[in-house]
Amino acid sequence: MSAVEIIRAKRDGRELTAAQIGEFVRAAAHGEWPDYQLSALLMAIFLKGMTVDETATLTRQMADSGKVLDLSDIPGVKVDKHSTGGVGDKVSLVLAPLAAACGVTVPMMSGRGLGHTGGTLDKLEAIPGFNVNLTEDQFREALRNVGVGMIGQTAEVAPADKKLYALRDVTGTVESIPLITASILSKKLAEGISGLVMDVKCGRGAFMKTLPDARALADSIQRVGTANGLKVVTMITAMDAPLGRAVGNSLEVIEAIETLKGNGPDDLTELCVQQAVRMVRLSELADTDAEAESKVRAAIGDGTAMAKFHQMVAQQGGDLSQLSLAPDRAQVTAKSAGFVGEMNAEAVGIAAMKLGAGRERAEDVVDPGVGVMVRKKPGEAVAVGDVVFEIYHRAAKGLTRAMELLEGSFTVVDLAPDVGPLVIEVMG
Amino acid sequence: MSAVEIIRAKRDGRELTAAQIGEFVRAAAHGEWPDYQLSALLMAIFLKGMTVDETATLTRQMADSGKVLDLSDIPGVKVDKHSTGGVGDKVSLVLAPLAAACGVTVPMMSGRGLGHTGGTLDKLEAIPGFNVNLTEDQFREALRNVGVGMIGQTAEVAPADKKLYALRDVTGTVESIPLITASILSKKLAEGISGLVMDVKCGRGAFMKTLPDARALADSIQRVGTANGLKVVTMITAMDAPLGRAVGNSLEVIEAIETLKGNGPDDLTELCVQQAVRMVRLSELADTDAEAESKVRAAIGDGTAMAKFHQMVAQQGGDLSQLSLAPDRAQVTAKSAGFVGEMNAEAVGIAAMKLGAGRERAEDVVDPGVGVMVRKKPGEAVAVGDVVFEIYHRAAKGLTRAMELLEGSFTVVDLAPDVGPLVIEVMG
Repeated sequence: MSAVEIIRAKRDGRELTAAQIGEFVRAAAHGEWPDYQLSALLMAIFLKGMTVDETATLTRQMADSGKVLDLSDIPGVKVDKHSTGGVGDKVSLVLAPLAAACGVTVPMMSGRGLGHTGGTLDKLEAIPGFNVNLTEDQFREALRNVGVGMIGQTAEVAPADKKLYALRDVTGTVESIPLITASILSKKLAEGISGLVMDVKCGRGAFMKTLPDARALADSIQRVGTANGLKVVTMITAMDAPLGRAVGNSLEVIEAIETLKGNGPDDLTELCVQQAVRMVRLSELADTDAEAESKVRAAIGDGTAMAKFHQMVAQQGGDLSQLSLAPDRAQVTAKSAGFVGEMNAEAVGIAAMKLGAGRERAEDVVDPGVGVMVRKKPGEAVAVGDVVFEIYHRAAKGLTRAMELLEGSFTVVDLAPDVGPLVIEVMG
Repeated sequence: MSAVEIIRAKRDGRELTAAQIGEFVRAAAHGEWPDYQLSALLMAIFLKGMTVDETATLTRQMADSGKVLDLSDIPGVKVDKHSTGGVGDKVSLVLAPLAAACGVTVPMMSGRGLGHTGGTLDKLEAIPGFNVNLTEDQFREALRNVGVGMIGQTAEVAPADKKLYALRDVTGTVESIPLITASILSKKLAEGISGLVMDVKCGRGAFMKTLPDARALADSIQRVGTANGLKVVTMITAMDAPLGRAVGNSLEVIEAIETLKGNGPDDLTELCVQQAVRMVRLSELADTDAEAESKVRAAIGDGTAMAKFHQMVAQQGGDLSQLSLAPDRAQVTAKSAGFVGEMNAEAVGIAAMKLGAGRERAEDVVDPGVGVMVRKKPGEAVAVGDVVFEIYHRAAKGLTRAMELLEGSFTVVDLAPDVGPLVIEVMG
């Protein structure tokens, strides 16, 4: 079976066989096809699509192209959460210890930020000493001792995905539902989990800008995850404005801690609780959503979630007392009175990136101390001169551009706007 | 303007601008994009198509990516003919001197054979000493002295086409009407001609197997050629059975000579006359088709076409007295009596290739002396034991496979079959 035959089959809209998909994935993982053949097939997949069966096979083969963790010796049902990425999305930092405090075993593997969206690893590394590169033994020890471990993907996980992800980025084949699905879920399958809460962000600050696009991805992830034996719950959640008020790594860690203490912003708290409820149900630690929710809220109320966070940080070598913020401040204020109307999360995310909180290119170094606090969110009243954004910068790096972006990122309207629901849809 | 932007534009079905197409063509000619980006765009073009305007721009830019001959100092209207390739298609060998004998200036650049189809250069090189690699000065001299020159494409002609052609072959992007059009016509534009007779072969021995496919290509070539200032006549001609009776390089030269003398097979003679008529009209050497046809038939009848062929061979260093055939013979005979029904030109072409007359891979060496003579063509009566194919082989090389292929390549039927028209359609 030659590469050209496989490319032609997909080009002509045919369903690829498991053997053909296997050939493609092995070729990607081991360099057996030249890149020009991989990219021709990626474009054919982009334009001709894949069925759920094909995507499920692609996903499984990509997972099996590298190391697959076997966590069967660790007690408990292993459940992870994954988000397609947003602005101010520090849910994982709250959710992982919160679910663990409720008895869920949480082996979480996350990524880094790129462009306007942040990454969980960058947020964790804002805590000086926090080691996201645990060895497999250290990760198992963390899961056994604390019930939660938060790490990055190692080079051995899904090498076929690494190759194809890099190639998609430079060949205009990123926005493909089957390819996105396989990329996300292959890495999750390789974690050795049995349950997954998937958060598909939808809105102007998200990768999926429209509800139909978000639904298509959510549906694909739900079906392909299930076909591969995962228990999956997929949520579509709003990402028009930033989530919570903090955008920037140290700022987000601080907000996550406040949320674990019960003092977090409403939207962030609500989303963390809803997702923790799903993780508790997937772990069969509660018979009803109501029972799960009371467990989750109790873990916040009685301090056990916060304690679990401290335990986790200690286990992974972090020192919260060393968390630091950039010294310099600037403000963006309201020029008219009324209510904050719309707020463009993408612009806020790019502003934070320009300050140094994120990466324009994969090789950029992140400054954990800089960022933006959203002092007025959509629906909140403002008077002339009220601070809408407080900027944490370092020696004005990126400040001019960030100010411009932030000034253009929101509207002030006369009537309090309708702020849509945070959780738009839930499947599974 | 980045490669990814251009790829995304075509991927999303947008029409590329001249600047975008120029960027792509320069990148192909000069290695400015990695191959994986070229192939991603080729697949996007394959699946999303190109308008006539885009294809015309692509064609012109590909021609301009290398050397473009300026033949304006050579008197006469310069007209070439190009065929998409068939089995037993030695038309160029007859047509070029025939048209030249009628006063047309014929600067002909041809290719080599690959797979089941032969190539004009291989046929010319069956004449010992015939030099298809004339320098530009030698080519001009041939055109001035004889009115016809037959050569191969030099490395300087359309380098963008060379790169893309090689890449298409290994990425499943060959059968694209805009890409085929641009590949053929870019090289023709670079010849400095003002008229072109295009022969789009249609049938089981051709690249285009069906009439709708052949029409689509013919229509594209007609429009794109015209848009680039060429006077084009496009013919769709039948290629189900081999053209004439000879398949194999020396055998085809001998048949071409017989045809120039007026003793050729009917179908070959007819096609050569029809195409010569078009070349004479494109050169404005006759006011009506009838006048052109009587000129052409006169050139055959009075020996001037044959004399022109001898002049051309002498000018390019060939020695017809040294033409040689392989010494060994074998026959395929009819097992039942009746009429030859269908004959599969592709199978006959592959049989000749297996004997050594063609190339399985571009680097194979061709044996000019081997081949197949079709003793009974579709519509002709056969008795049991009649020779249908006479095989010219060398020490049985490829003979077993060739015999199998030839035995399976034809049917014998009770009633004389309808043999369809040779010239199916003419445009322009």
